[in-house]
Amino acid sequence: MPRYRLLLEYDGTPFAGWQRQADRMSVQQALEEAIARFSGEIAVTQAAGRTDAGVHALGQVVHFDLARDWDANRIREALNFHLKPNPVAVLEADSVPESFSARFSALARHYEYCILNRRARPALEENHVWHVPVSLDAAAMHEGAQYLIGQHDFTTFRDSQCQAKSPVKTLDRLEVRREADHIVVTASARSFLHHQVRSMVGSLKLVGEGRWSPAEMRNILEAADRSRCGMLAPAAGLYLTRVDY
Amino acid sequence: MPRYRLLLEYDGTPFAGWQRQADRMSVQQALEEAIARFSGEIAVTQAAGRTDAGVHALGQVVHFDLARDWDANRIREALNFHLKPNPVAVLEADSVPESFSARFSALARHYEYCILNRRARPALEENHVWHVPVSLDAAAMHEGAQYLIGQHDFTTFRDSQCQAKSPVKTLDRLEVRREADHIVVTASARSFLHHQVRSMVGSLKLVGEGRWSPAEMRNILEAADRSRCGMLAPAAGLYLTRVDY
Repeated sequence: MPRYRLLLEYDGTPFAGWQRQADRMSVQQALEEAIARFSGEIAVTQAAGRTDAGVHALGQVVHFDLARDWDANRIREALNFHLKPNPVAVLEADSVPESFSARFSALARHYEYCILNRRARPALEENHVWHVPVSLDAAAMHEGAQYLIGQHDFTTFRDSQCQAKSPVKTLDRLEVRREADHIVVTASARSFLHHQVRSMVGSLKLVGEGRWSPAEMRNILEAADRSRCGMLAPAAGLYLTRVDY
Repeated sequence: MPRYRLLLEYDGTPFAGWQRQADRMSVQQALEEAIARFSGEIAVTQAAGRTDAGVHALGQVVHFDLARDWDANRIREALNFHLKPNPVAVLEADSVPESFSARFSALARHYEYCILNRRARPALEENHVWHVPVSLDAAAMHEGAQYLIGQHDFTTFRDSQCQAKSPVKTLDRLEVRREADHIVVTASARSFLHHQVRSMVGSLKLVGEGRWSPAEMRNILEAADRSRCGMLAPAAGLYLTRVDY
């Protein structure tokens, strides 16, 4: 069967996350219903990143199969029409070989986490940032982040519900920079554990506040103990920005 | 009476614009109600830019007088509390001399206009950009924009409802640049006519599409004829970013 790849942008706010849920609309359900409306076929979509409720995507990658052969541009236009009014946009659609898997062919996943670091709450970015009113030291956060780079047991930063077989992952990049009132954390790895990025950001926030030294990140990593993790940073600040193949 | 200056951010989407209206909530009304709730006083606020319905602000400046003397930080915190759930945030509050006027003391006003220039509609930026699906040539738009710099009769770019005494204004800056899928137009002047920025952007869009040459901007400016203007660009893409004093 012909296989198609989509590049998706979505606002995670109204969704239960990527994955289908019995009781609440998910991005997957919205997309599969749109596919059914234009093609008349029931397709099962698979995504590179199973984003949580409230998490956004600028570059989620999805694949699915249809019995019929379609022009990829027509798929893009038809899906953008049928996805309305859901805040999901198809940026690209392509035909891909059947060997392509959005999930298993991915070589790297890139996330950004956005903190609004000022006294006043967001007026224009509500649901799209984590509002932290106390001043954060981005340089200290960046220094602390560097202790996490490389291959480690990330048990400390792993949700208890995580279904990955092993807590060992290789983190390629974790950078923290300030842009005026915003602190942006960029994270790259072949794959992440469940809640790993939000757990790392929640811990780095304690470094930014000065409550932890940067080196405390090494200590909690080496402890391999979930109870040593800082708070889980809220979903609203997290964006799946890109997936490499 | 003590005078206070506020720096405001707001999402213009739910408002009838800055100015009070009989039938629909305005930013001014939301702010004056919040002032009344914390101070018990009825204050009249004056703003640097009377933004239209749907227009946003990253740096609107407002002043108002109260009989009682307040600590400026307390005003900021109290207003941010009482403004909820309106999407208006007070970024700064200061005591200022009675000679200060947010409107008349302003030396320069800076606006940004943001176009999302791609096929797919916005998922994350709905109501915050103008979505233009046909490809625009930002360099041609920038070239066309330069014909408007300086002191001119801007009648072509002036709304018929504009109450300014003269259509002659001095435009200090009008720059167009592409940032990936976005085209950002930056405009600076001591003051603008009603709908001037949106009229200039709507005309530059025709240059970007190749329907007009860049030099056509000079022709329509010199015609001083409202009927020669391009379409009025939608309010959603416009931001009052800064006011200088």
